[in-house]
Formats: sequence, structure tokens, C-alpha cells
Amino acid sequence: MNEALGRLPRRDDVSAAAVHARAADILRPSGALRWLDEIAEWIAGWQHSATPRIERPVGLIFAADHGIAAATKVSAYPTGITEAMLAAYRQGRSTITAFARLAGAEVDAIDVGVGRPTGDIRYEPALSPERFDEVVAEAVRAVDALDTDLLVLGEMGIGNTTPSAAVAAALAGGETAAWVGRGTGIDDDGLARKRAAVQEAVRRIAGVTDPLEVLREVGGAELVAIAAATVAARLRSIPVLLDGYVVTSSVMPLSFVNPAALDHCAVGHCSAEPGHRKLLERLGKRPLLDLDMRLGEGSGAMAAVPLVAMACAGITDVPTFAEWFGQ
Amino acid sequence: MNEALGRLPRRDDVSAAAVHARAADILRPSGALRWLDEIAEWIAGWQHSATPRIERPVGLIFAADHGIAAATKVSAYPTGITEAMLAAYRQGRSTITAFARLAGAEVDAIDVGVGRPTGDIRYEPALSPERFDEVVAEAVRAVDALDTDLLVLGEMGIGNTTPSAAVAAALAGGETAAWVGRGTGIDDDGLARKRAAVQEAVRRIAGVTDPLEVLREVGGAELVAIAAATVAARLRSIPVLLDGYVVTSSVMPLSFVNPAALDHCAVGHCSAEPGHRKLLERLGKRPLLDLDMRLGEGSGAMAAVPLVAMACAGITDVPTFAEWFGQ
Repeated sequence: MNEALGRLPRRDDVSAAAVHARAADILRPSGALRWLDEIAEWIAGWQHSATPRIERPVGLIFAADHGIAAATKVSAYPTGITEAMLAAYRQGRSTITAFARLAGAEVDAIDVGVGRPTGDIRYEPALSPERFDEVVAEAVRAVDALDTDLLVLGEMGIGNTTPSAAVAAALAGGETAAWVGRGTGIDDDGLARKRAAVQEAVRRIAGVTDPLEVLREVGGAELVAIAAATVAARLRSIPVLLDGYVVTSSVMPLSFVNPAALDHCAVGHCSAEPGHRKLLERLGKRPLLDLDMRLGEGSGAMAAVPLVAMACAGITDVPTFAEWFGQ
Repeated sequence: MNEALGRLPRRDDVSAAAVHARAADILRPSGALRWLDEIAEWIAGWQHSATPRIERPVGLIFAADHGIAAATKVSAYPTGITEAMLAAYRQGRSTITAFARLAGAEVDAIDVGVGRPTGDIRYEPALSPERFDEVVAEAVRAVDALDTDLLVLGEMGIGNTTPSAAVAAALAGGETAAWVGRGTGIDDDGLARKRAAVQEAVRRIAGVTDPLEVLREVGGAELVAIAAATVAARLRSIPVLLDGYVVTSSVMPLSFVNPAALDHCAVGHCSAEPGHRKLLERLGKRPLLDLDMRLGEGSGAMAAVPLVAMACAGITDVPTFAEWFGQ
């Protein structure tokens, strides 16, 4: 991935500028939708089109299990839930699939390690270099097979806010405890265990400086898949809508390798997990929604898909003052 | 309206409680969507159904002109724009109609005074008692003709943030200037004129205590229509999604007559007009969206319709743990 991150395509400034110019004369007070207009401009730049549209949104959920969750209780739920949820996504019986039907989106769930937990990040790497490469290849294949104009990235993996906090703490620094929240709702003892686990994991890799190595060491399979999918989408110039804390932690290493690596990404929502807001500030990304959601699955980003579609329609489906009064 | 406000129907607590109970066991971590679950519960209560659904959302835009805007420049746009926008709504060539297509909603625009400006609120009542009653009747007729399960209320009227500020300042008190913003983007001189106009209007009605009389005196025809439509929707138990500053100012008098009058209303978005956030705090309503929009038309509320639909689907279209693991 380091090599791909060195030769990332840029957005199409001409299409983006065309949307910017059109927005300034559209049949509404100047600047009345400033931020949504910027979203349309962002989509235009990556879709290479002055008429940005969201017609084939797709949600990809990467699912995996975690050694740390098997070894010590860092989640309010047992690890078997990951597999049950994978089935629920595939049968369209989950929250994100319910949201996706209303957003006109397809959802696919990809197993990158359910029932094959990663190493216990306190004592060993989450993934071997070989497993890391396999997961990257699987995620790239999944993205390369898509026909989509907006990719929503989500995740499922019982215990995965623990590796997410470890990645964030290792890269962004500061008080480790501040990156650790209650996830799906762990109690005080669980929170203390989670903080201790993250601290141990971060201490273990104190010498590691390569951001992708940090991800391999203290992340998880679905985190690696999300990072790889984000790069694969960039190589195909597909705009990406990021979900909550786990997804944002997964892609943060990319921005440490190349500060422009997330230019094709917007953030669907801000999670109730406290570390997420900190991460978004760090990345300079403003979330479209702020609904206290803390579900994962990509549900918060999927909830924002209609807003992105509306932002585009606000440019393409509304006349300019010149068009309206000239008619 | 005062009479209707004294005998408002209450929500169906049984349906709301059924949704609340179902939310606690649905196939996701407990409380993961707390606020959206509350939205579903709110819809259930007013739809009198334990399976809340948004299938026929409708946006009503009430449009009118304002004497104050004709008499002194309080808007960046000429009053003739109101009529041009009315045509754009009806031909489906506006921002809200573009949003509505994506939200699966119908939009109707109702002329309650375009080209028939109200009185200049600095010196005279906006509407005579007879005109007030006519507008109320027109709005009630419009709502009574609807077949909808979620009503979005919007407005159009060049200059109408000035009467909105006057209504808010007269009822909520505090520094008048704090209720006056730049609307569609007036310059510093215009803002000073707007503030002076609002101050004069508020001073003129210093003795008026009936909240609906305040609305008649310093409001506008579309403001009165929105208040009346909100009451009419309540009498039919239709949930209402409020838009920005003008719509919220329009309905605030209702809550001064009966504190429960807005229980069937949620707020779609928080406008960039600074007085809106203050009004929402005063009403104890949290907006679903906060996107710096300042367009009116009902566009901010329409943008939130998919979220309300998703909140409902998150209850009705997702199994409970018992249903999923019992199958």
C-alpha cells in the first residue's frame, strides 16, 4: 500500500470548478447551501463530472474477529455476535440494510476473519505480514468488483473499538485513556480493562514508526481491509463516505503516509464514541450527521447518503438564475 | 385557533411504548441509535401505530409578501422574487423539490399573499383580523386535503426573517438585535435597518399579550398559515417536521398558548440564521441536521425526511435479538 500511497490520483479540478461556478448562480440565495454545495463539488471532482450524481451507492461492511476480545472482556457482547451479524447483513435483516433500502444503496458484507481472531495485540502483532497482504488483496478485489458512484465503508467485529483506540493512540499520541470509550456499552470494569489493554499494545510497539505497520501490529483484519478499500477506491476515483470511530481509525494511518490520502473521503457522521470527534478534528473533517449513533456497520455513513445525493441534485436539478429568468 | 389549542389531542402512548420496548431488544447494541429510536417512538405516537412508517411525506410551502420589505430594504433580494419562486416550486424546479424527489415526497406551494403585501409592521398590524382568519382557513383547508404520514412545513417570502425576528423578540424577549440576522445575506446597512424595523415593530405592540395577536400584528401571512397548518396537523394527528427560523418563529406563539402544542413537531435542521438556535433552545427542540443551511422553502426539514424514515425502518425492518436468534 505504501507504494500506491505515493502515486495517488488527484481530483478533477475542472469539474469541481464548474460545480463551484454553477453553485454561485443557482436559483437560491448565494451561499444558502454553502456546505452541501461543497459536498457536490467534492463529488464532482472525484466523479470527473460537472453533473455529480449519486445513483449507485454501495456499502461494504468488513467483518472480523479479534484476539483481544477472545482473551479478555473488552466488549459488552460475546465474539459469536460477529458471525450472527454477518448473516443478518447478508439476509438484509440489519440496521444498515434497512437504511440502505431507503438510501437506494446496495450492501455487501465481506468476511475477512470471522472466527479467525487476530493476535492478542497486548502481546503480539494482530496480523502477520502474510495475513496483512491477504486481507489487503481481498479488500482491493472487493472494491475493484464494484460498480458504484459512492462507497460507504463500514465494519463489524466484536471488540474492535479496542484496536481502533490503539491505532489512534499510537499515531495521534496524547493520553491513551482519552482514545478509549465504552464501545457498544461496556461497564466501568470493562472500560478499565480496555484502557489497560490499549496501553499495553501501544507500549509494545513503541519503536514502530511506519503507520501501516502500526495498523498491522495493533489493528485488526477489518481495519486493514477498510484502509486498503479506501486506497483502492482512490485509485478508481470513487468518492468514499466514512462511518464512525473504527472506520476513521482504520484510514488515519493513510493520512500519516500521505496527507492527501483522504481527500476523496467525507465523513458521514460523528459517533458517540468520544475518540471519534478527536480523530475528526485531527483529520480536519466535519461530519455530515451528529446523531449520537454508536452502532458501526457503516450505518451512520449510510444515513448520510441521501444528503450527499441531495447536495448533488441541488446543483444538477435546480436551474441557475440565468436559466430560470432567461427562459 | 385559541379554542383549538385548548383541546389538542395527545399522542398514542401505547404505540409509542411498544416502539420503546422493541427498540430495547432490537438486533444492535442497546441504545446504539438512541435518538433515532426516540424519533421512531415519536412518529409511532402520532401515527397511532406500533409500526411507524414514512411512506407519503408531503412538503407544504406557504408563500406571501411583506409590507416591510416593500417599504424599506430588509432583504438582499427584490420582492418580485417571491412570485418567481412560487412558480419554481410548482414546476418542480427548486431546491426543495429536488430534495423531495430524493426523499420520496410531494411538494405543494400555497399562495397566501404573494403580490398582496402585509401592513408595514413598524406602523400597523401585518394582517387585519379578517385577513388573519382567511389565511388560517386557507391553511387548514390545505392540511385537511392531505393524505400524508409526515408533514414538512416551509415558507417563502422575501423579507420574512424580519417579521420572524419581531415575533421571536416580542414573545421570547431579550436583546432585540440578537434575534435579527442577515437572512438571505443582507449587508451591514441592511442589517442595521432590519434591527431598527424589528425594534419599532416590537415597541409598537408593547401592550399586546395574546401570542396569536403578536403573530397577527408583527408576523406575516405565511407565518400565520404555518401556525394554523401546525394546529390542523395536530388535530389530525399528523407528525410535523419544522424547517428553519421563519417556520420556528411562526409556531412559537402556539407553545406560548399551550406548552404541549408542539409535541407533534420535530425540527429538521438548525439554520445558519443565529436566532434559530436560540429559539430551538427556548423550545427545547434538538434539530436533526446542522448543515449551516439558510434557504427556507422547507429545504432543511425536507433534507431530514430520509432520517425520519430510517429511524422508523430501524424499528420495523430489523428483527429483535429474540426474533433473530429464535428463528
